[in-house]
Amino acid sequence: MTWYYGECPAPSQRHRDLARKRQDELTKPPGSLGRLEKVAVDFAGWQSRAIPELSRVAVRVFAADHGISRRGVSAFPPEVTAQMVDNFVGGGAAISVLSQPLRADFAVVNMGTFEPVANAPKLHNLQLAPGSADFSEEPALSAALTERCLETGKAQVDMLDCQLFIAGEMGIGNTTAAAAICAAHLGLDGAAVAGRGTGIDDATLRRKRELIDTALNLHAGALDAPLGILQCLGGLEIAALCGAYLRCGQRRIPVLVDGFIATAAALLAAAINPGLRPWLMAAHRSSEGAHGRALDALGLDPLLDLGMRLGEGSGAAVAVPILQSALRLHAQMATFHQAHVQEGETHT
Amino acid sequence: MTWYYGECPAPSQRHRDLARKRQDELTKPPGSLGRLEKVAVDFAGWQSRAIPELSRVAVRVFAADHGISRRGVSAFPPEVTAQMVDNFVGGGAAISVLSQPLRADFAVVNMGTFEPVANAPKLHNLQLAPGSADFSEEPALSAALTERCLETGKAQVDMLDCQLFIAGEMGIGNTTAAAAICAAHLGLDGAAVAGRGTGIDDATLRRKRELIDTALNLHAGALDAPLGILQCLGGLEIAALCGAYLRCGQRRIPVLVDGFIATAAALLAAAINPGLRPWLMAAHRSSEGAHGRALDALGLDPLLDLGMRLGEGSGAAVAVPILQSALRLHAQMATFHQAHVQEGETHT
Repeated sequence: MTWYYGECPAPSQRHRDLARKRQDELTKPPGSLGRLEKVAVDFAGWQSRAIPELSRVAVRVFAADHGISRRGVSAFPPEVTAQMVDNFVGGGAAISVLSQPLRADFAVVNMGTFEPVANAPKLHNLQLAPGSADFSEEPALSAALTERCLETGKAQVDMLDCQLFIAGEMGIGNTTAAAAICAAHLGLDGAAVAGRGTGIDDATLRRKRELIDTALNLHAGALDAPLGILQCLGGLEIAALCGAYLRCGQRRIPVLVDGFIATAAALLAAAINPGLRPWLMAAHRSSEGAHGRALDALGLDPLLDLGMRLGEGSGAAVAVPILQSALRLHAQMATFHQAHVQEGETHT
Repeated sequence: MTWYYGECPAPSQRHRDLARKRQDELTKPPGSLGRLEKVAVDFAGWQSRAIPELSRVAVRVFAADHGISRRGVSAFPPEVTAQMVDNFVGGGAAISVLSQPLRADFAVVNMGTFEPVANAPKLHNLQLAPGSADFSEEPALSAALTERCLETGKAQVDMLDCQLFIAGEMGIGNTTAAAAICAAHLGLDGAAVAGRGTGIDDATLRRKRELIDTALNLHAGALDAPLGILQCLGGLEIAALCGAYLRCGQRRIPVLVDGFIATAAALLAAAINPGLRPWLMAAHRSSEGAHGRALDALGLDPLLDLGMRLGEGSGAAVAVPILQSALRLHAQMATFHQAHVQEGETHT
């Protein structure tokens, strides 16, 4: 059996119940911390402890170029993928800045840019291929390359000792790939899934939609299964995200899913192995294209809605302090008994 | 002229413009950080510097009892107000836990509980009156007491050296007072504004609505001006919040408004002195009653929507790391020029 079909254990219901009970004993009206209470209960199940904690966060940014970007679907030229890899490891990109105060285990994985990039500290410079193929003409990835990308994601997660995993991505053209994936998986067309990505004009948006429809037609016979979708329409970094997410579920590591591209990868990963689903949490609602639809399909309710659409894992990194606040409240608040506060007669 | 009519200076448009320009030069598609970009621009205007920072946060929790609570409008008995004051200074309440990692300047102000509370470090034990009067029978506060509460809020802010002010509140029955204030100011009735507060049942909710309608009738002649509303329907802690907010605007200190009760206070404060409005920011959308309506009336778009309804300043404290992420990105991200990244041809 291929590794990614291996079991994802279920979160501990016993510890979820203990955490739920504790929430009702803390000095506040029951339910009054809203979503923060649910976060504490979720982490209790994930960590199999009634009072969980979150200090070790891992961030991996997977980068790759996309053949489709040569068709002009982005406001930025493909060279920017490699330039941004330098910026990630140089500390100047959004995700680099956000990872610092989290003391996150941060690294960048170059899955394959058109032109090689220079080695650097914190860069896994793998370069599995010089980008993906143009999926409007042929499958984006070969079957063998797809497997290697999935395994690369797995291998990255196998290196980690963390309590939360964030995957970021960088790849000029990858909102087009993510949109095509969502369309194929959810039975939609280009018009329903394509957004403005980095900020494209109307003519470019029209081209993006048409290229997605062309690809959906071209690969129609191969889009019934999530692995077929990944191979035909994906990209090296998107396949690596899939593999990383799948391994997180197997290793009991909760995943904080970032924006549109990360959610497209999660959609396929959870379709490949449905046991992954309980290990996923959505960080934010991106303002990009069909993100809401992809979240709905996964049954994920994002923590934040700040109109972000940058990718890189940036929305997820912004959401981490919310999770930490939830766990701190759960661990450190006094109970009614401890604080000698009378309980209410609550009915809701 | 009474102090609270004194001028609130306008934020610096020049520094807002400089910050806006910088945002467009950072290595990201313009606009892709969404609301975080607006936060950076707002702080630039507030601090009159192109690259603002946020490290000094002040939290003041104002507590008081409410005569209306003797009518049974809460799931908790009035004794809980004083018990929670102990819990705040003892470190066991939600706002106490949340203030710690922010290294906030934290203190509690007892404006007036039914029974006196013991002195403690970090407690300003002022006890201006043994709670407010039952506003379904008489004005909640006398004119003189209203002024003293406003001045107490001012005096608290005059003690601070901070870059952001959060006011919390505690007072069994104070969602009823806040709902009555919103009804009077926005021209609504009890049914439109009353929520379930700490978790009341249907019968209690009905009583709460009726008491609000009774009070709106009783005080009808005195509710045309915000100070009349505050006096007839407010509470000692709500009046202190008004005074504190008004002083923040005068002292160029931005306010992160918490939930329903804090927003009701902000509504009156901004009506008393409209120059305050540009210094207000909403932390979160509470799931309590008419909070959305009060936010709309102020034109405030909250940062978070986590279903919280605890008060104490807790929702505001949870939102602070979002603000700090926004300012860190603004200050530390590389520009396109610095990082040698090509700019896009962006159209949105």
